[in-house]
Amino acid sequence: MNGAQALIRTLVDCGVDVCFANPGTSEMHFVAALDDVPAMRPVLALFEGVATGAADGYARMAGRPAATLLHLGPGLGNGIANLHNARRAHSPVVNIVGDHATYHQRFDAPLQSDIAGLAGPVSCWYAEVTEPAALAPQAVAAVAGARRAPGGVATLVVPADVSWTDGAAPAAPTPAAVSPRPGTSVEPASVEAVAAVLRSGEPTALLLGGPAMAEAGLAAAARVASATSTRLLSETFPAVHERGAGLPAVERLAYLAELTALQLGGLRHLVLVGAPHPVSFFAYPDKPSDLVPDGCTVHTLAAAGDDVVGALAMLVDALDAAGAAVTTQPAQRPAMPGGGALDAQSAAAVIGALLPEGAIVSDEANTSGLFVPGATAGAPRHTWLCLTGGAIGQGLPLATGAAVACPDRKVLCLQADGSALYTAQALWTQAREGLDVTTVVFDNRSYAILAMELGRVGAGTGGARARRMLELDDPPLDMVALSKGMGVPATRATTVEEFAEQLAKALAEPGPALVDAVVPPAV
Amino acid sequence: MNGAQALIRTLVDCGVDVCFANPGTSEMHFVAALDDVPAMRPVLALFEGVATGAADGYARMAGRPAATLLHLGPGLGNGIANLHNARRAHSPVVNIVGDHATYHQRFDAPLQSDIAGLAGPVSCWYAEVTEPAALAPQAVAAVAGARRAPGGVATLVVPADVSWTDGAAPAAPTPAAVSPRPGTSVEPASVEAVAAVLRSGEPTALLLGGPAMAEAGLAAAARVASATSTRLLSETFPAVHERGAGLPAVERLAYLAELTALQLGGLRHLVLVGAPHPVSFFAYPDKPSDLVPDGCTVHTLAAAGDDVVGALAMLVDALDAAGAAVTTQPAQRPAMPGGGALDAQSAAAVIGALLPEGAIVSDEANTSGLFVPGATAGAPRHTWLCLTGGAIGQGLPLATGAAVACPDRKVLCLQADGSALYTAQALWTQAREGLDVTTVVFDNRSYAILAMELGRVGAGTGGARARRMLELDDPPLDMVALSKGMGVPATRATTVEEFAEQLAKALAEPGPALVDAVVPPAV
Repeated sequence: MNGAQALIRTLVDCGVDVCFANPGTSEMHFVAALDDVPAMRPVLALFEGVATGAADGYARMAGRPAATLLHLGPGLGNGIANLHNARRAHSPVVNIVGDHATYHQRFDAPLQSDIAGLAGPVSCWYAEVTEPAALAPQAVAAVAGARRAPGGVATLVVPADVSWTDGAAPAAPTPAAVSPRPGTSVEPASVEAVAAVLRSGEPTALLLGGPAMAEAGLAAAARVASATSTRLLSETFPAVHERGAGLPAVERLAYLAELTALQLGGLRHLVLVGAPHPVSFFAYPDKPSDLVPDGCTVHTLAAAGDDVVGALAMLVDALDAAGAAVTTQPAQRPAMPGGGALDAQSAAAVIGALLPEGAIVSDEANTSGLFVPGATAGAPRHTWLCLTGGAIGQGLPLATGAAVACPDRKVLCLQADGSALYTAQALWTQAREGLDVTTVVFDNRSYAILAMELGRVGAGTGGARARRMLELDDPPLDMVALSKGMGVPATRATTVEEFAEQLAKALAEPGPALVDAVVPPAV
Repeated sequence: MNGAQALIRTLVDCGVDVCFANPGTSEMHFVAALDDVPAMRPVLALFEGVATGAADGYARMAGRPAATLLHLGPGLGNGIANLHNARRAHSPVVNIVGDHATYHQRFDAPLQSDIAGLAGPVSCWYAEVTEPAALAPQAVAAVAGARRAPGGVATLVVPADVSWTDGAAPAAPTPAAVSPRPGTSVEPASVEAVAAVLRSGEPTALLLGGPAMAEAGLAAAARVASATSTRLLSETFPAVHERGAGLPAVERLAYLAELTALQLGGLRHLVLVGAPHPVSFFAYPDKPSDLVPDGCTVHTLAAAGDDVVGALAMLVDALDAAGAAVTTQPAQRPAMPGGGALDAQSAAAVIGALLPEGAIVSDEANTSGLFVPGATAGAPRHTWLCLTGGAIGQGLPLATGAAVACPDRKVLCLQADGSALYTAQALWTQAREGLDVTTVVFDNRSYAILAMELGRVGAGTGGARARRMLELDDPPLDMVALSKGMGVPATRATTVEEFAEQLAKALAEPGPALVDAVVPPAV
């Protein structure tokens, strides 16, 4: 057994049985070993950013890591943007980067680069294996590193000779690799301090994030809210948000600081529950970076890495709120619009009317998606995945990985056109794997968010040359042609009726499909 | 005048008047300032790897740097693969990365990341500006840093508040920014030592690279070769190679070490002239990494950073070879194939028959391009640009930047299909800017080079699962649809006649066009 074979067997034994791969020459023994370990499912991507974004989506939905397979420093570079998003999502990812043979590195061949330097900014764990005997044990450690609460990117660098050398053996999984702890238990005194704040009767909100956005956390938070008249808010871009009819509703903090000020205005206490301290997404002249209003004290029930759901359960107990009534979202869909122009608002209503039960929504709709969360709030229960790190090009790969993780659920990818063009190659992987993903591209032929931000940062409306840098209409991108070119059937909708008909058809049929929704900029 | 305005004026004053941009919110003041400085030409890219690859292509052809404009760490990440190639090409690039406002960085907003960590592996110069007054002087230093021989990527990080703060002023260019030295002069004693080797009469070759591959260097090297019976070889993947009828012919070292052994076999001396010591592109079990055969001594006339062309001139003088006859490549085109199957060999003949005088060839044809250099060796004079760093996805962006630099010359992009999919968004920029680029995609529907490398690294022919990881035919990529979807007219050729007709038409008409050449794998 060579190193690559031992590596893949070890990963599978640790429960890592999907690998999103874009390999090169230095990874050929890994590729060859796929035939020796049929339990590992390889998923080919045409670009590394697709592989890393898919690994993020897989981890968010499967609750355990997939592996990637990337080709030296430049391949890692192509994957960094979506590893950044995975880092912000606290998604466990076993990020395998092939490297030149150990003895070859000193020759500075063309592809030689500083892999450690590139990996550092996105990795919570890093190791370069230099001896075959160390490979399988380091693979176990990488899985454990990725799964250590709150979860992150563990980068394992595997030189080619370590892969091809015979005499290797798999390593046994450790408990930390296969049964990770949910995080550090919160001190009872901290819980009691928060309970005292909540009992004060002053205007208070819980700010939920991370694991608190799944059912158990939401239910516990809703009991706390009910027992103490506390409001429930959440971080702006949660990694995974379970929502819809029958689940407690949580109001997400807005992207626009102007709106956040309204949401947080009047609060005397904000309790962080797995969410970071709220800050402005970008800086703006003469606007605060810290979104917490004057007079509001911030408390932390549980930070990232803590047992967030356990802390909420402790808080329920401390407040004697186990029997508190839980207010849930009533079932409610918008009426299907009768007609009229297709725009961000009517498109949202159509999506709200049609969203299937159990759907997974990969949301990178940006400005065009402004109305969709509201329109789907009372839809049948579903899962919402946000752009956690702001690195655009997440939507299509994330949907791809989510579909691999949950083959029995429909994935709906809501995708802005500008962002789609970063990682559109994901469509090919969806076609090749027959993944059940319906993509809606909001085709407004502009970087609409930047047209808005141009004014918000104080740069005015821009002259002709500036505005042209935000326009995607010369030439227009033909998203239908691009989708078909990558093997995904696609249609274009320019009216409400067309959009409703095409989306219903795409959602009804298995396999990938794309609907190009031509809309004017929403902002 | 705010910082962004001062920055752009300073860049223009330093001769940097093209900016390949993919901006975000933190770069909006830079974008707004484009209307204040009309001498700066902004070129929008839909993906950062297009921007960085175009900046590389521009620098190779213009001989001076363009700027990039990238959005924080993730935007830089997307640009790293082609910055890696630029680094290996010694291309001067002023790599501008926007960042959060200085005071905002401590809040760890979603897009915050370690930009310095990511930039380090590809940058020869790095600075993060923290005060508005430092911006323009640092821009001058960045241009000088990029242009310092042998040339490289100078990364200038510009926080948003530094861009938007008023009271800035442009900085005056320094001589190092506008009139860079050609490199360190080589010691006469070193030249004399090489001259003594060449006079020895033993089997000797010059290994040319970097600036030696342009006309002056080639002419000097040819005089040396003529006067001393020395062979002329070159590095495998030169950044810029002037070639064709009337220029001295140079034999490039092969990619395959098996062939390199034949090229270097029997040599007693190898003299490096701006080229690195020849090493194997990848490591292979039981094959040497160092390609220099036993019994061959390596000498260095000029290394990267030295005045390579000046050193060759000194060598000509030392050998009293100024009057030596220069052997040049005779004009010679292959006959246009009469018909038959379109494959890598017949496609190469068609290209050789049609290559226009003065063409710039961006070569990322990989295995399918095996026969093209030979078929074009005697074509009218042209410029050949290679994949310097092995990070695929260079071809289309490089062609884009070369076309911006040289609007009066035809650019021919020879592009493998697998590699095309990394940065295909470059086609949109070509359409938007009306660039005169003809792209030939060698459409063999596989990662053919990996199918070859699988065996070369000793992993055999691969089982069914391994082989499927190297195949791009399920579904087939429709390159014609992808090209049209990005606004570039495209046709498909499956026969020699179709390819000849379509390529002739594309070359005859101005503006971008793509020919999808369906060929079987060449290896």
